[in-house]
Amino acid sequence: MTENLSLLAEVPTCPRDEKLRPRVFADASGAYLTDDSGFRWVDFDNARGSVLLGHGDPGVAAAVAHAATGAAGTATGWSPRLDTVLERLRELCGGETVGLFRSGTAAVRAAVLAVRESTGRDLVLSAGYHGYDPMWFPGPALSAPNTDGVIDFYFDLGLLDDLLRTPQSVAAVVISPDHMHLSPDWYRQARQLCDRAEVPVIADEVKVGLRYGPGLSTADTLRPDVYTVAKGMANGFAVAAVGGSRALLKPLKEVSFTSFFEPTILAAADHTLERVATGEPQRTARDAGERFLGQARAALAEASLPLDVVGDGTFFQFVPASEGVEADFNRAADAEGLLFYAGDNQAVSAAFDDAVVADAQDRFTRVCERLAPYRGQPRPDEAARYRAAWNVLDGLGEGDRDRGATEDLIALLLDD
Amino acid sequence: MTENLSLLAEVPTCPRDEKLRPRVFADASGAYLTDDSGFRWVDFDNARGSVLLGHGDPGVAAAVAHAATGAAGTATGWSPRLDTVLERLRELCGGETVGLFRSGTAAVRAAVLAVRESTGRDLVLSAGYHGYDPMWFPGPALSAPNTDGVIDFYFDLGLLDDLLRTPQSVAAVVISPDHMHLSPDWYRQARQLCDRAEVPVIADEVKVGLRYGPGLSTADTLRPDVYTVAKGMANGFAVAAVGGSRALLKPLKEVSFTSFFEPTILAAADHTLERVATGEPQRTARDAGERFLGQARAALAEASLPLDVVGDGTFFQFVPASEGVEADFNRAADAEGLLFYAGDNQAVSAAFDDAVVADAQDRFTRVCERLAPYRGQPRPDEAARYRAAWNVLDGLGEGDRDRGATEDLIALLLDD
Repeated sequence: MTENLSLLAEVPTCPRDEKLRPRVFADASGAYLTDDSGFRWVDFDNARGSVLLGHGDPGVAAAVAHAATGAAGTATGWSPRLDTVLERLRELCGGETVGLFRSGTAAVRAAVLAVRESTGRDLVLSAGYHGYDPMWFPGPALSAPNTDGVIDFYFDLGLLDDLLRTPQSVAAVVISPDHMHLSPDWYRQARQLCDRAEVPVIADEVKVGLRYGPGLSTADTLRPDVYTVAKGMANGFAVAAVGGSRALLKPLKEVSFTSFFEPTILAAADHTLERVATGEPQRTARDAGERFLGQARAALAEASLPLDVVGDGTFFQFVPASEGVEADFNRAADAEGLLFYAGDNQAVSAAFDDAVVADAQDRFTRVCERLAPYRGQPRPDEAARYRAAWNVLDGLGEGDRDRGATEDLIALLLDD
Repeated sequence: MTENLSLLAEVPTCPRDEKLRPRVFADASGAYLTDDSGFRWVDFDNARGSVLLGHGDPGVAAAVAHAATGAAGTATGWSPRLDTVLERLRELCGGETVGLFRSGTAAVRAAVLAVRESTGRDLVLSAGYHGYDPMWFPGPALSAPNTDGVIDFYFDLGLLDDLLRTPQSVAAVVISPDHMHLSPDWYRQARQLCDRAEVPVIADEVKVGLRYGPGLSTADTLRPDVYTVAKGMANGFAVAAVGGSRALLKPLKEVSFTSFFEPTILAAADHTLERVATGEPQRTARDAGERFLGQARAALAEASLPLDVVGDGTFFQFVPASEGVEADFNRAADAEGLLFYAGDNQAVSAAFDDAVVADAQDRFTRVCERLAPYRGQPRPDEAARYRAAWNVLDGLGEGDRDRGATEDLIALLLDD
């Protein structure tokens, strides 16, 4: 890629330099990545939050190496480990039935089409990112369905309320939870609206599921009828799950793909889920994130810099006051070897021990020093906060606003 | 699964017993699988043809174990190995641009939607199986599009010719090649029809690509504008590729998914593609298949049994004269530990050495002995041959027939 751009049909999301060329990594260990120049980074990206235990985790690596020899089963068919993985998922995330897919995109698409088929209704109301599939592309106008029958309500409960006034055509409401920009009360209200309309809720917990604790992050608030999880379940290996109501998911009975039984992925999932079930790696990661965040917030305040941080130790996001601040912040972080997921959520792993946190804190102090020219500039305003939320949510953060303000904000942010 | 059916939302394709319960395998090594009762099977299924080098291949296992430690890169971002894999694919399969996906289903869907977007045309003409996605479900009537704008022409060139008479609405013709039931001339004629209509051809070589030799199996006949490959490229690991014309595939630029850079899959693909590029594992597998086939055909003839075999050492298929023969053949093969992909294509691996072939031949001789009651019964007729072809193709095998016969056959086989 670095030499021949013609090779790739895609520009996948990954760390890039200022010229948008992908950074190339030769080695990964625990919390650290080493790039092709030998420079060492502290990884806050962690494959967009899917590496929870740390890179090259010895337990996962041993399980995968063992499975690769064929000693744990075969891609040809069923294995005892498949039962274990499915049982672990059901115990952690609930539901009557669980199925596996190879990506979050595939899992959410399958879940939504299954519910559409089993309800016999066409319309899908959506909030948040659900993968790269074109079925999620925006419609021609606000509250108008796209060619796949999907209407985005951008996390606005007023819009959702309106769209649910003709519930007989709505198959499901599908929501990608985010806990940096939406409160538990938001999910409870969304659930109430769906209950009143008797429309099933699909929680797309590909990002947050199993990461905040050993289960769904919205089990008690959104109480989903169907869920998907992915990033929390296999430390970066290629697996996603769909679970929930058997009646709603019945059309998935026939789903099949060649690598369904591939044993190294099942090994990574089995080992990761066993550890995730204890809640220990999530606590370790969150505690490390909190310690980093405490120092980061203090350093930003101390230096009077125009950046805020939202979220907690599990997932957090930097909110810059302007695009200029953002560009210089990214440049400074790069120079100090803090590998942030640019503009999006940062996710530490359980490999962030005291030494890593101290190292990251030192680096962040130097990032703040580099930003000294911004000292005393105005802090992020409401527009900056909405823009930051939009980067993560593909929708609107929670806030008091009327319909006019909602429509103006969506038009502005879609245009950006 | 064996104990609790409620766990799984899916009934994936895999070896099953007579009651359709999945067989459970504890171990896989080379050409052999060991089930949970300790019984040893010779594997002709090989994960629906995706395991070419054999189970637990030491080279793949070592590369995967190394990558699992983080020593070859990271799921967070780009690695030197990604460049290598993309370059190998382009050298083997051609095209200006190559992209990666996690399953054949995802790759073909992405390729077709990309071509639809870049041509600005809606209709897709399809022959063959392209994955589990509902976009490939049958339409309401012959030559009528389904809700996703896809019309199946069931490998009938007369139907294709008719459908291409209004080429201005056709985005692409997508074909899953099969070399057991269609001759090279069939692909040349299909290409001619598409050339005349100026409609691009997508070859869905998920099954056959790289398996017959170190490249696309229809490079010289169908000369596809866009291709997908999968089963031949990573010995059962979860990766698929889309390649071809940069102009047609441009909409894939934005495609991204979390496990894109996952290093164990890239390691398996890198190692497998390096060996596949020599043509050696494909030759070894085909030669072993031919030796098995030679004996199988002789044994079937010797015992005057009502079964034929079509295909060659790479992929072959048993054609039983009736459903009764088929059921008893499957039972006999199960009893002798020949793990066939029931009703579909058999695919030996390069792990079939002389001892394995001899073992499989002995077992097949005993299968024929078990079928002695069928001695002298009528051989498979044309209807049986069409039925066998349909099982593999999801369409009609090549044959002389008029439009009426074509329509009758499709109605009959769809109904089955």
